[in-house]
Amino acid sequence: MMLTQPTLLLDKAKCLANIERMATKAKNANVLFRPHFKTHQSAEVGSWFRDYEVECITVSSVKMAVYFANNGWTDITIAFPANILEWSTINKLAGRINLNIVVESIETIQALEKQLSNPVGIYIKTDTGYGRTGVNAENYETMQMLLSKLKTCKNLIFIGFLCHAGHTYNTISNDEVGQIMESSRQQLLALKTFMANDFPLIQLSYGDTPSCSQFDNFEGFDEIRPGNFAFYDNMQAHLGSCHLNDIAVAMACPVVAKHAERLEIIIHGGAVHFSKDQISINGKPQFGTVIKLDGLNWDTNHKIGHIAKLSQEHGIIKVPTDQFEQINIGDMLAILPVHSCLTSNLMGEYLTTEGKRISML
Amino acid sequence: MMLTQPTLLLDKAKCLANIERMATKAKNANVLFRPHFKTHQSAEVGSWFRDYEVECITVSSVKMAVYFANNGWTDITIAFPANILEWSTINKLAGRINLNIVVESIETIQALEKQLSNPVGIYIKTDTGYGRTGVNAENYETMQMLLSKLKTCKNLIFIGFLCHAGHTYNTISNDEVGQIMESSRQQLLALKTFMANDFPLIQLSYGDTPSCSQFDNFEGFDEIRPGNFAFYDNMQAHLGSCHLNDIAVAMACPVVAKHAERLEIIIHGGAVHFSKDQISINGKPQFGTVIKLDGLNWDTNHKIGHIAKLSQEHGIIKVPTDQFEQINIGDMLAILPVHSCLTSNLMGEYLTTEGKRISML
Repeated sequence: MMLTQPTLLLDKAKCLANIERMATKAKNANVLFRPHFKTHQSAEVGSWFRDYEVECITVSSVKMAVYFANNGWTDITIAFPANILEWSTINKLAGRINLNIVVESIETIQALEKQLSNPVGIYIKTDTGYGRTGVNAENYETMQMLLSKLKTCKNLIFIGFLCHAGHTYNTISNDEVGQIMESSRQQLLALKTFMANDFPLIQLSYGDTPSCSQFDNFEGFDEIRPGNFAFYDNMQAHLGSCHLNDIAVAMACPVVAKHAERLEIIIHGGAVHFSKDQISINGKPQFGTVIKLDGLNWDTNHKIGHIAKLSQEHGIIKVPTDQFEQINIGDMLAILPVHSCLTSNLMGEYLTTEGKRISML
Repeated sequence: MMLTQPTLLLDKAKCLANIERMATKAKNANVLFRPHFKTHQSAEVGSWFRDYEVECITVSSVKMAVYFANNGWTDITIAFPANILEWSTINKLAGRINLNIVVESIETIQALEKQLSNPVGIYIKTDTGYGRTGVNAENYETMQMLLSKLKTCKNLIFIGFLCHAGHTYNTISNDEVGQIMESSRQQLLALKTFMANDFPLIQLSYGDTPSCSQFDNFEGFDEIRPGNFAFYDNMQAHLGSCHLNDIAVAMACPVVAKHAERLEIIIHGGAVHFSKDQISINGKPQFGTVIKLDGLNWDTNHKIGHIAKLSQEHGIIKVPTDQFEQINIGDMLAILPVHSCLTSNLMGEYLTTEGKRISML
């Protein structure tokens, strides 16, 4: 197959190996594996998880929940603060599948209790230090108030506490990731103990790819919800969650210009393909690692350079002198993206390294 | 119409006013107005330009050129370095419409001359200081070499020099934008004069929304190619190219959580809706200006705050104390995006403030 335009390649073998590794970890730790499907947003990629006994999944929007429900998934958690304006869709979905949603305020609980006629599982979104959203894990007063209210709600079935330790993305060492995971665990366990008299069956749901990739002690948690691990990306390699060779997606991009005087290569591949997430190496932003592309395959031993700048359609690649001469206008290069979730979301389609097109939401 | 999810609103009246202002400017300056359609990527929005006598357009990819050709546009410039791998589509398109492409290397010229059987207009991509791509405007040696080669090419019809002065986006004052525009003009005119003996009919094509918005002296240029002006955005307002009230698009996003202790509002509206382009105010990033939404309309006098952080689906809004209490979970807020081109590209659809859905490429 001849590639001519920016194309998102997916190496199924690498993806399956990533899924298997995480599924095995979860199994060994005796926790439920509820992978986050926002990374791939694809019914077909989702179906690959079935071979590893995955039956429960996580998504990040009501729309995504509907898509996966329509594709045969019957146990879904929407791990995003419930949007009460979407109550009608939530209610219909809760009538068809086991649906869990996430709440963090009395206003949301009151609105949903009034509107929903089908039972829905409820997690309290719990903030263990990330500071994005959720009730502070140590704010027992608010937690008790929310739980007391939930006790009176016919269709809102309290299940437990859900946290996303997203501050693992701001770390500079595995140790730091481990400390965040441990601190989150202790906060959630203390909360569970505090509430145990009134709620003896509280479940603890923990997510984030760096923790779940770098560690395997999931003691205390009932389920894990990593997502990005299925593909991984440059960010995760940078954080020490994977090797470059584990990254299952690469953007194939055509070379359209060369600038010898500044050792730069211009590709068709910009913010509309990659998004603008970046990692910082020696204080300079990088938007992707550039690898030689061989047909539809890439070998991370053949690193060419990195994307130093992105505009809407252009990518500017910095390459060392010895690589520059070997790259020609009209070549296709493979780029390991910084954030595979956003790249997939933009591209809307995968081409497997075996040449099969796979659609997305 | 009741909005429940992140929705990209388009105020047609503001958009028409923006188009009319630029069309009038171009007419008064006696230059061809060849607007860049990468901003809206929509056949319907494109059709609005017809009322202002626009017949020639600019796009940034072959795919976009095919889309607009299929929607009745017959004079299109693809203002991106020609990708020789797409020669077959370029050739077919050149057989149907007046197609101009952009080249900057002998390799691309040689490859296209071999492959194309239909005549195509050729601009040399010229770098007047942005430093992204193109031949340096003062590199007469390379220019002469490319033009000599083009003279021998049957189907590559040399038209002129095309530049995008994208460094206007890095400025901190209108004066600086003006200096960049003036410097670009002088470089292009000098180049034209140098080549005038051999090529008496050279056309100069100039693009970029900051210059074309902030100034109206287009002397020396034959055409202008601004794009973003049709919608404008927070970035352009920040650069002084427009007022907040000229911005024709706003994302409507639902409030899903509130954090009183840090005066933060969480919306469903993240990197998958806005992209991650940012402006820096007092050294801190902002990802959008938040305005009160009244039905499908917004009034920039009712400013609420700004987006301080984005993750995949979450937006974190900072608001002053007096605004905080007036915003409720379940409210929809209007966000003026930092980069309307990337926001449109992500959303894939507009809803006009009159309630009409408009599709995109």
